[in-house]
Amino acid sequence: MDIKIEKVEGGVCVAAGFLASAAHAGIKRVASEKDDMALVYSEEPCVAAGVFTRNRVKAAPVRVSMRNLRNGIHHGVVLNSGNANACTGREGEANAWRTIELVARALGRSAREFLVCSTGRIGVPLPMEKMERTIPRLVEGLSAGRSREAAVAIMTSDTFPKESAVRVWEVGGMYSIGGIAKGAGMIQPDMATMLCVVTTDVSIEKLFLQEALWRVVERTFNRITVDGDMSTNDTVIVLANGRSGVRLDGRDEAGLGRFEQGLEAVCLELARMIVRDGEGTTRVIRVEVEGARNAKEARVAARAVANSVLLKCAFAGGDANWGRILDALGYSGARFDVKKVNVFYEGLPVVIGGIAGPAADTQELKAVAQKEEFCVRIELGAGEAGYWMLTTDMTEEYVRLNLSE
Amino acid sequence: MDIKIEKVEGGVCVAAGFLASAAHAGIKRVASEKDDMALVYSEEPCVAAGVFTRNRVKAAPVRVSMRNLRNGIHHGVVLNSGNANACTGREGEANAWRTIELVARALGRSAREFLVCSTGRIGVPLPMEKMERTIPRLVEGLSAGRSREAAVAIMTSDTFPKESAVRVWEVGGMYSIGGIAKGAGMIQPDMATMLCVVTTDVSIEKLFLQEALWRVVERTFNRITVDGDMSTNDTVIVLANGRSGVRLDGRDEAGLGRFEQGLEAVCLELARMIVRDGEGTTRVIRVEVEGARNAKEARVAARAVANSVLLKCAFAGGDANWGRILDALGYSGARFDVKKVNVFYEGLPVVIGGIAGPAADTQELKAVAQKEEFCVRIELGAGEAGYWMLTTDMTEEYVRLNLSE
Repeated sequence: MDIKIEKVEGGVCVAAGFLASAAHAGIKRVASEKDDMALVYSEEPCVAAGVFTRNRVKAAPVRVSMRNLRNGIHHGVVLNSGNANACTGREGEANAWRTIELVARALGRSAREFLVCSTGRIGVPLPMEKMERTIPRLVEGLSAGRSREAAVAIMTSDTFPKESAVRVWEVGGMYSIGGIAKGAGMIQPDMATMLCVVTTDVSIEKLFLQEALWRVVERTFNRITVDGDMSTNDTVIVLANGRSGVRLDGRDEAGLGRFEQGLEAVCLELARMIVRDGEGTTRVIRVEVEGARNAKEARVAARAVANSVLLKCAFAGGDANWGRILDALGYSGARFDVKKVNVFYEGLPVVIGGIAGPAADTQELKAVAQKEEFCVRIELGAGEAGYWMLTTDMTEEYVRLNLSE
Repeated sequence: MDIKIEKVEGGVCVAAGFLASAAHAGIKRVASEKDDMALVYSEEPCVAAGVFTRNRVKAAPVRVSMRNLRNGIHHGVVLNSGNANACTGREGEANAWRTIELVARALGRSAREFLVCSTGRIGVPLPMEKMERTIPRLVEGLSAGRSREAAVAIMTSDTFPKESAVRVWEVGGMYSIGGIAKGAGMIQPDMATMLCVVTTDVSIEKLFLQEALWRVVERTFNRITVDGDMSTNDTVIVLANGRSGVRLDGRDEAGLGRFEQGLEAVCLELARMIVRDGEGTTRVIRVEVEGARNAKEARVAARAVANSVLLKCAFAGGDANWGRILDALGYSGARFDVKKVNVFYEGLPVVIGGIAGPAADTQELKAVAQKEEFCVRIELGAGEAGYWMLTTDMTEEYVRLNLSE
């Protein structure tokens, strides 16, 4: 068999031994028929890794999951939409713990072996009675065919469920990596909660799993949602149960590298889906910065451009408006000489040497700005460092959707 | 006569010896009948002070004005709307210089004695022929009755002209301070250009004038537009011609203090007008942070809250949504313990100790969030430092107005 990574259908149940389930508890204050609780479970014990919001205000489920993650063995993740269980004090933490305790008990496990994620309105206590009543159904419903139902259950303002999976073929066998995610209202600068659960049936040490996840999140979810702007609940969790029989040795750098590649493919596809599904979004724009003095300045320059509300509004109107790009670069904090800056829209030279380039006022540029996806490349001419981000336009629909929860 | 500061009608022509003028050149690419050039002039020589955008990408008029400001004597400011003359390279600087040269020549002065401001689209060369043709009319039109016409001529997306003035009564006599300003499309996080020209007939040393202006801008315009987010063209200029006969001695701290107070009153009123006139704005919200560990953290906390797009959208919908405030505080970079955070809306205890307070879910809170102006006070409980900012809601109308230039 050739060594390869292959994209496949499915989400958290592609990896052997993982079950999923979804159920309706009625968590939102506004009545809805949609499932709002989900469970991902492995009978086999897993090692787990997680990356959590860096927001100083961390929701109760984040605090509980961070604590539980220190344990060696895990069996699953409980998720809910409709209520973030954030800014709910001690009661919130007790409720998060109670949720996993009930799930664990129904499965004959310890609460310490579960992680928990919530998304929705901040500051409202979880409706525990409704959730307690739902947990037996949630546990009974576990099946290898319910990844998509779980992906639907965690949706908030998402318009479609998000799943992605790959198979990795090694000399010694095959294993799978797959995940589900829910997206942000808008991505930056103020994202709603992003949740992601990835499962894999490879056998890997906890430390290697955690390191791979850190690096992958930096190259995927962090390119659409930036540290400083994270919500109170953002969580990415990976569970590995070893069920495929493929064991990644700590000295097998090539094998670990392929695992990281597979994990990145899954996370990148989920991250792209989140951008595409941004509230009221009509366009996805890739912002590439090159020629920055260092990595940090490349990042702040890309972030300033990707976060410019004025630019995002112009993009919604199909207006290239490169002046707003130079303005954003100017206040980003990156150091450069504007006389050396070039900007290309899909390769069209729109700014050359800091002033209007040959394509600045052309029909070709207008056509690019009307596309649903396009790339803006910025050359700062100040060094060698680069960074890229995915951003969206900002439409009236976005504002309408966010007038209230 | 009592020593006092008194609010009066008018703008740049309240101070004795200052004339203003406005004319239509047709600078915008889209045809418009509105005047788009303005001139503020003093026959007597003035000392001048200025505060300019900290954006790394500075428009040509900013660079020319910063250079000219080093000269000791000035006579006026030439302004235009419809074109920012930014990102226009050497040609842009030559055009800015040519503009003041023609005005100066018509007045028998040197170009070195004038400052220049532009606002409008970035990256398009100034239509010099049209402007040159207009300058004679602009100079001929100078009159002590045209402050308002000048205020109208510099408007872009502003819906009303902005003027403010005070009289300051000293023991030795009376002098005036008055200004005109144009506002931002939206204020933060990506403001359009803010321009302000203030005149005074007091006699003051250049150094004292500059120091007073720095401090006043920090307490007024910087509370609505933040350093890092400034546009390529932001400019505040003060001209003092001494015509009132009142001379502020450098050792007269009380007198200098009153001047600064008067200047602050003028600038604060203009800043408030700019916020109230934000594109599509329906509400003005004062964000007060108290109890931060230090001044910097108070500022970043207030900025994060005042700039939260999600929060601004909620405010547009008349939704208090305090969860989005805690979220913004959490990623602001300010250090605090969420369990000590209180938030009050017009005095209503909405968050107490980091969780929902008694007013969190009340009709009173709903009524506050529906008001056109209200105050959100945030107590971080981490120290003694405070900061305040004025922000607005973000409406669908704002996005519509910014779909293109």
